Amino acid sequence: MDESVDEQIEDRSDWYIRTVLSAELADYTPVRGSIAIRPYGYAIWENIQADVDRELKATGHKNASFPLFIPMSFMRREAEHVEGFAPELAVVTHGGGQKLAEELVVRPTSETIIYDCYRKWIKSYRDLPVLINQWGNAVRWEMRTRPFLRGMEFLWQEGHTAHETFAEADAEARLILDIYVRFIQEVLAIPVVPGRKSEREKFAGAEITYTMESMMRDGRALQMGTSHNLGQNFGRAFDVRFLDRDGEQKFPWSTSWAVSTRLIGALVLVHGDDKGLILPPRIAPFQVVIVPIWRKDEERATVEAFVSQVEAELQAAGLRLEIDRRDTVTPGFKFNDWELRGVPVRLEIGPRDVAANQVTAARRDTREKQAIGLAGLAAELHSLLEDVQSTMAARAREFADTHTQSVSGFAELAAGLEASPGFYWINWCGDPVCEDRLMELKASIRALPMDESAAGAGGACTVCGKDGKTRALVAKAY
Amino acid sequence: MDESVDEQIEDRSDWYIRTVLSAELADYTPVRGSIAIRPYGYAIWENIQADVDRELKATGHKNASFPLFIPMSFMRREAEHVEGFAPELAVVTHGGGQKLAEELVVRPTSETIIYDCYRKWIKSYRDLPVLINQWGNAVRWEMRTRPFLRGMEFLWQEGHTAHETFAEADAEARLILDIYVRFIQEVLAIPVVPGRKSEREKFAGAEITYTMESMMRDGRALQMGTSHNLGQNFGRAFDVRFLDRDGEQKFPWSTSWAVSTRLIGALVLVHGDDKGLILPPRIAPFQVVIVPIWRKDEERATVEAFVSQVEAELQAAGLRLEIDRRDTVTPGFKFNDWELRGVPVRLEIGPRDVAANQVTAARRDTREKQAIGLAGLAAELHSLLEDVQSTMAARAREFADTHTQSVSGFAELAAGLEASPGFYWINWCGDPVCEDRLMELKASIRALPMDESAAGAGGACTVCGKDGKTRALVAKAY
Repeated sequence: MDESVDEQIEDRSDWYIRTVLSAELADYTPVRGSIAIRPYGYAIWENIQADVDRELKATGHKNASFPLFIPMSFMRREAEHVEGFAPELAVVTHGGGQKLAEELVVRPTSETIIYDCYRKWIKSYRDLPVLINQWGNAVRWEMRTRPFLRGMEFLWQEGHTAHETFAEADAEARLILDIYVRFIQEVLAIPVVPGRKSEREKFAGAEITYTMESMMRDGRALQMGTSHNLGQNFGRAFDVRFLDRDGEQKFPWSTSWAVSTRLIGALVLVHGDDKGLILPPRIAPFQVVIVPIWRKDEERATVEAFVSQVEAELQAAGLRLEIDRRDTVTPGFKFNDWELRGVPVRLEIGPRDVAANQVTAARRDTREKQAIGLAGLAAELHSLLEDVQSTMAARAREFADTHTQSVSGFAELAAGLEASPGFYWINWCGDPVCEDRLMELKASIRALPMDESAAGAGGACTVCGKDGKTRALVAKAY
Repeated sequence: MDESVDEQIEDRSDWYIRTVLSAELADYTPVRGSIAIRPYGYAIWENIQADVDRELKATGHKNASFPLFIPMSFMRREAEHVEGFAPELAVVTHGGGQKLAEELVVRPTSETIIYDCYRKWIKSYRDLPVLINQWGNAVRWEMRTRPFLRGMEFLWQEGHTAHETFAEADAEARLILDIYVRFIQEVLAIPVVPGRKSEREKFAGAEITYTMESMMRDGRALQMGTSHNLGQNFGRAFDVRFLDRDGEQKFPWSTSWAVSTRLIGALVLVHGDDKGLILPPRIAPFQVVIVPIWRKDEERATVEAFVSQVEAELQAAGLRLEIDRRDTVTPGFKFNDWELRGVPVRLEIGPRDVAANQVTAARRDTREKQAIGLAGLAAELHSLLEDVQSTMAARAREFADTHTQSVSGFAELAAGLEASPGFYWINWCGDPVCEDRLMELKASIRALPMDESAAGAGGACTVCGKDGKTRALVAKAY
């Protein structure tokens, strides 16, 4: 790659904001770090919710809702938790015109308030496992914010489960990671690297944090979601005890896990191009947009009748469809507009198409056009959309693969990150001092291999040269 | 009715809380007025959401998400609005460890932050109508709270639309009220009286507030939801201007409307009995629960095989089904447990049922039992559930009808409200002084007829005896 990598990243950052705003995914508001998610962006979130929710329910999870406000004292009960979140809290000090006796925190995450409830709900091993998920909002007072990627307020799901044993909790945390990974790869067409976080990077209060890292088009890593094995930390902090099968009182073993509206940002960053968004068909609000075309008034009725026929057929076939019938803008304007919004397939229908009993299909990802006859159109489109989906996934996979390397020396790592940002596998001795040195390169350890035992190092620590204990994935990150 | 009406109401209030807690709809939390909605209660909310959301989308509305926090100065822009909401605000004064330059309000409702966005999105009549809805949470610092009925925090949908004319906005506000009324009557099996609010009772910032009032079993009214014609008040306050067809710059005409988790409370209060909840089949998380019954081990395998066969058939038929396979509690315990939770139909399946190739169906509303043969079981159950639904609706309608009266004198009204709480239609001169006098009776005007022009009074004002201008519905309210 050329020398102006940092400049490219800056350009990429401008491009990102411009695309998010002009595709009407979201808009800024006067509240710093709080965006308005506009209908087109929210429709993507609804599709994400529907898919993830279905998978969670299929694996026995149920939704519930817990309070937005958390007593400040609750945050302090788990030592690592408060240390991690204290700098990011929004605090309600007044309510109903009165100063509050105890300040309330706007939830940055809900472990504390939920474990206070679980103390009442979990008495016996018969009450376990508890498999609860919540869809909602959360607030973290971030210093640098960016729409979808890092917000003061964001939307997410947060799962909170409790189990009889460490092994069950760990299996749950890994099951959820698998669900996330499958969803992100198969539906969002984004390859991910699953792994564990280092001690330094793990969730404040977790024993083990499992993560998924994806490579954006600028080579930087985005953490797509996390799944935490919390051990007995919150059970102990909130005095949740259950009578076990062996007659002993024990603290339950628990997990928490989340994906958020950040995934919308990832869709933009991974798949977008200079024309705007490119949305994978499985998540796109509209899979197909129809643009009717005519010049003369006498063509209009013919085209419109044909369009209505196509509309009825495709709707019956279950395609998510939009017909752009605006008569205040030109077809060319519409083409650009829907390309900007990343609709996977555009159908142009003009007088010649009507005469030939066909439509002209333009796919967004490769920008190729082809005529498709009306007979069997729905089936043809289904297969075209599947091809768009797999082509997008393959392209993202190829980009990630070609920008993932193994390095064995620090100088090599530094030169690599400078010249060609991407994912770098290194050997690591496990010493936080070596992890800290990566900050000099504006990089960090994004993930360790999932299984500690299988994570045999390939050689000496890439940073200090001492015995490597594990492989580690290093990258610049969002 | 007997003399101890107030005592009954108090008993009813205890019964309500006990039912909500023991049916595991919700639980208290240490944050005053903030409940945890437990999975069984949240499942009802998900069913409400699914139905209402489908209707809103079918009428062209789209979902979006706006910030949780609102700058304090925004609340002050619309004079009536701030006056109405100032006493109920929760205020964030600190974020990220710093005192904020401007305090942030946790949204009690989102008109202000939304109209600030609409200023950027609405420039021309071509951008209208804007038909946006938001599912989310809101916070009002209420003094007396009760689970679902009045919370400091609650979940709701809030719709916010903008239009070219007053007439369009008014038609929208009425359309939404119709959607709500149909949903509440047909799905929740609760009769409602639609109407307008008086000046005193209308939403802070609205021109016209349309309301729906339902009668609970203690004769008191519950406001089930509202739909506001906001006139140009928020457009003007936030300087939203559009270029109209006539070339003039104008403020748009707007509406807002909401239903909330309060509807769950209404289901409890209208349909419940001394055994617990009774849920209408169209909204129940489980429409049918199967309780397998056996005494001897050798019966178990036969019963379980039969139950699995029934399960497969009913699931294929799209019934929402639960099989209670717990082996730590007796069938009698299970009967009580599911009656408490209000499942419309229980199927008991024991050795005799298996031998006779039948199930024993017990309906929750009438507590009648009947045997149903396995052949055509799903169809029989569908029709049984429809009968439960219509029976519940008819019973609630009959209760409301028999507790709704017309009165012409204040003494008669006072005596009526005292002896037999219910809905009382009065004649009203329109003077707020007469409205205030109703407070002496712990009552208020819940609704005026929908159409002012058609609301001819039947005679002299029930309170002061001067010329009546309109009919008015009076009741004690939640």
